[in-house]
Amino acid sequence: MALIGNKEYFKGIGDIKFEGKESTNPLAFKYYNPDQVVAGKTMKEHFKFAIAYWHTFCGQGSDPFGPGTQNFPWDTSSDPLQAAKDKADAAFEFITKMGFDYYCFHDFDLINEGSTLVESEKRIHSITDYLKDKMEASKVKLLWGTSNCFSNPRYMNGAATNPDFNVVARAGAQVKLALDTTIALNGENYVFWGGREGYMSLLNTDMGRELDHMAQFLTTAKDYARAQGFKGTFFIEPKPMEPMKHQYDFDSATAIGFLRKYGLDKDFKINIEVNHATLAQHTFQHELQVAANEGMLGSIDANRGDYQNGWDTDQFPNNIQETTEAMLVFLKAGGLQGGGVNFDAKIRRNSTDLEDVFLAHIGGADTFARALLTADKIITSSTYDELRTQRYASFDEGKGKEFEEGKLNLQDLYKIAQENGELDLKSGKQELFENIINQYI
Amino acid sequence: MALIGNKEYFKGIGDIKFEGKESTNPLAFKYYNPDQVVAGKTMKEHFKFAIAYWHTFCGQGSDPFGPGTQNFPWDTSSDPLQAAKDKADAAFEFITKMGFDYYCFHDFDLINEGSTLVESEKRIHSITDYLKDKMEASKVKLLWGTSNCFSNPRYMNGAATNPDFNVVARAGAQVKLALDTTIALNGENYVFWGGREGYMSLLNTDMGRELDHMAQFLTTAKDYARAQGFKGTFFIEPKPMEPMKHQYDFDSATAIGFLRKYGLDKDFKINIEVNHATLAQHTFQHELQVAANEGMLGSIDANRGDYQNGWDTDQFPNNIQETTEAMLVFLKAGGLQGGGVNFDAKIRRNSTDLEDVFLAHIGGADTFARALLTADKIITSSTYDELRTQRYASFDEGKGKEFEEGKLNLQDLYKIAQENGELDLKSGKQELFENIINQYI
Amino acid sequence: MALIGNKEYFKGIGDIKFEGKESTNPLAFKYYNPDQVVAGKTMKEHFKFAIAYWHTFCGQGSDPFGPGTQNFPWDTSSDPLQAAKDKADAAFEFITKMGFDYYCFHDFDLINEGSTLVESEKRIHSITDYLKDKMEASKVKLLWGTSNCFSNPRYMNGAATNPDFNVVARAGAQVKLALDTTIALNGENYVFWGGREGYMSLLNTDMGRELDHMAQFLTTAKDYARAQGFKGTFFIEPKPMEPMKHQYDFDSATAIGFLRKYGLDKDFKINIEVNHATLAQHTFQHELQVAANEGMLGSIDANRGDYQNGWDTDQFPNNIQETTEAMLVFLKAGGLQGGGVNFDAKIRRNSTDLEDVFLAHIGGADTFARALLTADKIITSSTYDELRTQRYASFDEGKGKEFEEGKLNLQDLYKIAQENGELDLKSGKQELFENIINQYI
Amino acid sequence: MALIGNKEYFKGIGDIKFEGKESTNPLAFKYYNPDQVVAGKTMKEHFKFAIAYWHTFCGQGSDPFGPGTQNFPWDTSSDPLQAAKDKADAAFEFITKMGFDYYCFHDFDLINEGSTLVESEKRIHSITDYLKDKMEASKVKLLWGTSNCFSNPRYMNGAATNPDFNVVARAGAQVKLALDTTIALNGENYVFWGGREGYMSLLNTDMGRELDHMAQFLTTAKDYARAQGFKGTFFIEPKPMEPMKHQYDFDSATAIGFLRKYGLDKDFKINIEVNHATLAQHTFQHELQVAANEGMLGSIDANRGDYQNGWDTDQFPNNIQETTEAMLVFLKAGGLQGGGVNFDAKIRRNSTDLEDVFLAHIGGADTFARALLTADKIITSSTYDELRTQRYASFDEGKGKEFEEGKLNLQDLYKIAQENGELDLKSGKQELFENIINQYI
Repeated sequence: MALIGNKEYFKGIGDIKFEGKESTNPLAFKYYNPDQVVAGKTMKEHFKFAIAYWHTFCGQGSDPFGPGTQNFPWDTSSDPLQAAKDKADAAFEFITKMGFDYYCFHDFDLINEGSTLVESEKRIHSITDYLKDKMEASKVKLLWGTSNCFSNPRYMNGAATNPDFNVVARAGAQVKLALDTTIALNGENYVFWGGREGYMSLLNTDMGRELDHMAQFLTTAKDYARAQGFKGTFFIEPKPMEPMKHQYDFDSATAIGFLRKYGLDKDFKINIEVNHATLAQHTFQHELQVAANEGMLGSIDANRGDYQNGWDTDQFPNNIQETTEAMLVFLKAGGLQGGGVNFDAKIRRNSTDLEDVFLAHIGGADTFARALLTADKIITSSTYDELRTQRYASFDEGKGKEFEEGKLNLQDLYKIAQENGELDLKSGKQELFENIINQYI
Repeated sequence: MALIGNKEYFKGIGDIKFEGKESTNPLAFKYYNPDQVVAGKTMKEHFKFAIAYWHTFCGQGSDPFGPGTQNFPWDTSSDPLQAAKDKADAAFEFITKMGFDYYCFHDFDLINEGSTLVESEKRIHSITDYLKDKMEASKVKLLWGTSNCFSNPRYMNGAATNPDFNVVARAGAQVKLALDTTIALNGENYVFWGGREGYMSLLNTDMGRELDHMAQFLTTAKDYARAQGFKGTFFIEPKPMEPMKHQYDFDSATAIGFLRKYGLDKDFKINIEVNHATLAQHTFQHELQVAANEGMLGSIDANRGDYQNGWDTDQFPNNIQETTEAMLVFLKAGGLQGGGVNFDAKIRRNSTDLEDVFLAHIGGADTFARALLTADKIITSSTYDELRTQRYASFDEGKGKEFEEGKLNLQDLYKIAQENGELDLKSGKQELFENIINQYI
Repeated sequence: MALIGNKEYFKGIGDIKFEGKESTNPLAFKYYNPDQVVAGKTMKEHFKFAIAYWHTFCGQGSDPFGPGTQNFPWDTSSDPLQAAKDKADAAFEFITKMGFDYYCFHDFDLINEGSTLVESEKRIHSITDYLKDKMEASKVKLLWGTSNCFSNPRYMNGAATNPDFNVVARAGAQVKLALDTTIALNGENYVFWGGREGYMSLLNTDMGRELDHMAQFLTTAKDYARAQGFKGTFFIEPKPMEPMKHQYDFDSATAIGFLRKYGLDKDFKINIEVNHATLAQHTFQHELQVAANEGMLGSIDANRGDYQNGWDTDQFPNNIQETTEAMLVFLKAGGLQGGGVNFDAKIRRNSTDLEDVFLAHIGGADTFARALLTADKIITSSTYDELRTQRYASFDEGKGKEFEEGKLNLQDLYKIAQENGELDLKSGKQELFENIINQYI
Repeated sequence: MALIGNKEYFKGIGDIKFEGKESTNPLAFKYYNPDQVVAGKTMKEHFKFAIAYWHTFCGQGSDPFGPGTQNFPWDTSSDPLQAAKDKADAAFEFITKMGFDYYCFHDFDLINEGSTLVESEKRIHSITDYLKDKMEASKVKLLWGTSNCFSNPRYMNGAATNPDFNVVARAGAQVKLALDTTIALNGENYVFWGGREGYMSLLNTDMGRELDHMAQFLTTAKDYARAQGFKGTFFIEPKPMEPMKHQYDFDSATAIGFLRKYGLDKDFKINIEVNHATLAQHTFQHELQVAANEGMLGSIDANRGDYQNGWDTDQFPNNIQETTEAMLVFLKAGGLQGGGVNFDAKIRRNSTDLEDVFLAHIGGADTFARALLTADKIITSSTYDELRTQRYASFDEGKGKEFEEGKLNLQDLYKIAQENGELDLKSGKQELFENIINQYI
């Protein structure tokens, strides 16, 4: 790979290659083989793996109990534009070394926010031009853009749902710029994560009014983007809590109910993050299934939580069983609608070696690749699918089918029950299903 | 109070009276004064306190680690109808001694299920006649009826969402009888709690198909009841899990989204149980607010969970702060739409004295009464309401109002933000709000 | 295998054999090869797999929302002794078909409790004789016995920690019989699970006094057993809650602290249950490590919880990653001290086929066997151990060693720090460790 | 109050006075009356309310999703010593206006850490002199000091438990300075909170060895302080997790077990933080009781968590019921051993008004004061204590007493049980206990 930026930040590390599962090279893929065809598509088409600009190139490992530990070599210039260019150089060097095709960003990941709207806009324009060139040279694409409307103190009471209209307007201005940037960089999708859309205390909150505002805001943003020719999908990314006590996009079901109520369900789909699912007391695969049920399985933010820790740990995905079960849902749903698999994950605060971020992404990509291979094999080679289908066979014909079609009333059901007498119990065979999954892992 | 039944089961205990908060009589109300007017209605009109037949007259304290401890004196006859009559006698004695006006039941709380549908139907009819007489004599009314479609082994894989159509039909037959019974007893509402509508394992489950079946089932039941002249409201009672790993009516937002998707939102409202709210990682008041936002705050199942225990402990409500915050939502929403406050709570397994169930209901009623009085005082006497309203004043006129009315586009917001420049931070004053609540408790 | 009992209950099912991981026979082991040597011992020596009498032969699938679904063919006689013999026949048929060597029981798993102590004692003696014969014939051994001092209503306020001395005495009598039985059957260990040793409410509880009583009770029981010649180990089985709000043996650390305080740490070790670990917000491997740190890793109750459900689901172990990490601790600790791996797990309520309990145990045994093989390979073939040891190398010599030996005071540390100046950061390499584990799975 | 510092930072706000519960002045105490005698001591003697330097004068509201919002007027100087003096001025102005007598600090709360150990030591000495003068002038005392051995990146793998001895030595040097400072300021106690003493991953951790190092470190620190003439108590402050996945001082029981194992239980007691208790799945009152059982109830870090949020929210205490139940334990235990009630709490990120930090501390102090008054009244005026004592009466004489004294063996218990026959059930009366508590609130 030819270097695209001006500097090389990851000098000791070459391109990451697929070497197969027997390889003992920690800096090689063992399962992720980008061009391998699985279930009719290459792995890279299935996943569209993307790098999260914020974790990998901005966040340096700070947590509520201490500052960052990872002093990035590209974070040295005091000139905002130069610092942004250096960061972009590092990012594109990393993405191309990993062999990934995509990245995702929040507006002020790309370049630090200015002290005024005008200055911020100017900065964003400058770095956009630089990114365009790098994208063209590297063929790396933008999976989605978004706007960080939660970090700046002005959004401490929410952005679209702020009780003060002037903050809502300010958020609108920021989203306009982020949409413009996403469109300029041929972004394939646009995400809304409502980090502070929710409440710290219900006592001081008019929740109904805030939800109406949120819908109005999303409508306004969507209309603007469509008018600018944006053809991509908008994603809502649910999260139940943190930083707020309660966030309005609690989980997929809540977000979908909201979108349907306000007539936004044609333009919006769901971006599911693993750790957000588990914080909402759901499995990752459950959240995928809920979105798939509605034809709204848009994109994935890949990471994992810690089942003993109740905050967003954003660890790299490494749970083989969880991801295998998720890939079963993924394959049965026909994959993602527009989105991809974005590594919204961060290395641990005490992972301070140059290579750690490579190791982390390798582990994550391999986990997904292995899970996809396993899920495909389960579907194509085992009795899994047939066992599952058979459970519902009574609805495929006769009275069951009539019921499904709405042709039976309650008295009909009563008569059928009377005629049937008592029924035999049919085992759910959960242990068998679980053994099958494990056998193929 | 004149005895209505044939036997007196709670001999040592007289009618429970309001004696005021200085009373040291444990068998007296200290806050619940049924005829006291608060915010334009009497307490008994606000609450319509109801007794849960299942916990108070059926459940005897068993848990997964041991059988029941509370050997009810009315549970002695081996004849199902006589046992049912004795139980009804105990129930009406208890309800009238408590001075409550309502009760709630599942079909087979009233009388044990028979071994066949025909036998069960016959039994239900017999006890219904007996209950009618008791209701007339005592003026006690039926707040809602429901059907237990989760205990019988036949429903182990779900009722309306069972993968086997014949079980769905069997559930339909049972719901028909429960609706008939509810209508016969002038029930004011009808509840669906989908205890096994969900999944034990997503691996063996076609969730999308099961949800379609659930909607079809509810539609069928609703159509039947309406055709029989039922004018009351149907309630969905959300619960996130237990007994199933995941239950489809996870929380209010999920249930409302489901009802709207399938066109059931005109006939159905939400019955919110405190412990179900907390199992779903919500506060009780949050769940009330979500339903109120949609005009679907139907009824309350009063109890409480234990924040350190992750199952449905169904303890009697005694959390003054939680209930006060809930009553703030309750009063602002204009109370319940059709339903009431049903004590869906059970005394602890080791509460085995005759009087314990009285003490428990007294504590629960007093908690609600005190919370209502406090919430009313907060609204009418403190700065709470004004502080809250002021936070949203920018939407009451000018550009904020235009935004709320959908008259501004994203470019308008951009221009407003440019003109505003940077904004001052406005404190959310959470600690002040919290101090106000505590001051009035 | 020749049939030992009088009846055959699992007719369609033959002996379960090891067939290797490519086998598609659901009724075969794919990893568990009893005589295969791993790390110097055969698999069956490592694990001493045991069947839990209570789940597999007594519990029929009831839960708080419905009665049992699994109508055992051996549970038909109304004569307690005959019913107990039939159950023993089924148990030994099952154990031998599985090829396991051990079982575990609570006293009244073996035979139903009588209505008096005398009657209970008589019953226990009768079934003990029957079991002795079956054990001799089958070579199946008793891993441990215990006493169920939590189900009977008399223990609703605790057994050893009951506020009423007469209940404590009653529990003592029961434990005496259970110890006698365990000794008579050559039980290798004896377990105390304090299901109701704890509190429902701290308000009515003198916790300090109850803990003193618990220690006194255990001392008394231990002294009695030793006087009868019992040479085995006593185990405490921690669980944080359920059925009680709080249980005194919350987790391993708490139980060990208790044992040390009361001088019981020489005779008692810890029996760790996976689901109890996760209910206490620990990983399984953490609990093993805590016990191993103290040389008290006694035995394992194998099952798993559900990370979204906050009660003891007691599912069969099937988590490959969790078990692999556990086996790393297990192997490094030199295995279990006296105990074995008891399948304290139950099939789901809707698993009602004859074969389901076989499938469940096969899946569980294979999970442990695979995890052991993987852990052994990680230790012997990967860089895992060396990477881990290297992290602590500074304590193996020089000043670090002196510190470890208690030879440095605070001023010494101060001087060393002054001389060192600021230190380089050393990555914890967590992602690398995780990738290594996954590579070997 | 005469101003002690050079500047006045809280200009609009006067001294906070007790005005009684009818006062509508938000800037007045409604329950906390410092000189009011309750249970034989004044409120200020019971509580020794302390201000936490870190939250109130250092933390500015940052969270993992955004920077601070509270731009402190005293945080303007770029000279570290001047900045530290300004902060001290603000702190002492605040403490005296609140009428509190104590404060608590971490070393580098007082002044920013220097880039070398020597520079840090110099800074600490300078600010110590300044603080001495302010303390003398204001009569404000130091409840406890501690060392922040968790924020600096050097401690990312732990301090006393770091796998690298040189980091352990560096932590030792820092603790030496913190002890010197605490002694110089007449600190009454010294705290160890092991924020990064634990593990991020068990995979790369030798837990047993790390625990030995922790004990060695604490021993070394204790010995040094005692040699310097420090007479106060050392406190361990348990927290189960966050920032680490697992922290070794998980809860009170774990910390006490550790102290006893390593012979540190004579010098160390426990400092209990409410939110840490709830993160460990305990109630606050439970943690107090565990420490009280061992005579180790040392001090309290007052705050509260959010039961729906799984991280340390550190909100100001406002839970009346929780605190009342805690004060019951507190009073029965005879109060705190050496420590006090430190407001280890922070105002919400969106509480940005000058007065908010006053409102928060007022609400917190009033919650504790009200709880103390209520608990005292429950103990002195209600049947609570007698009901509780009566439950254990069987151990006060006769056979129960003999059992408690270790005079009965298991056969004695057996005989007593045989003689007793079956026992009557005694209700635990939990609902009655709960009603009593609520009646007095």
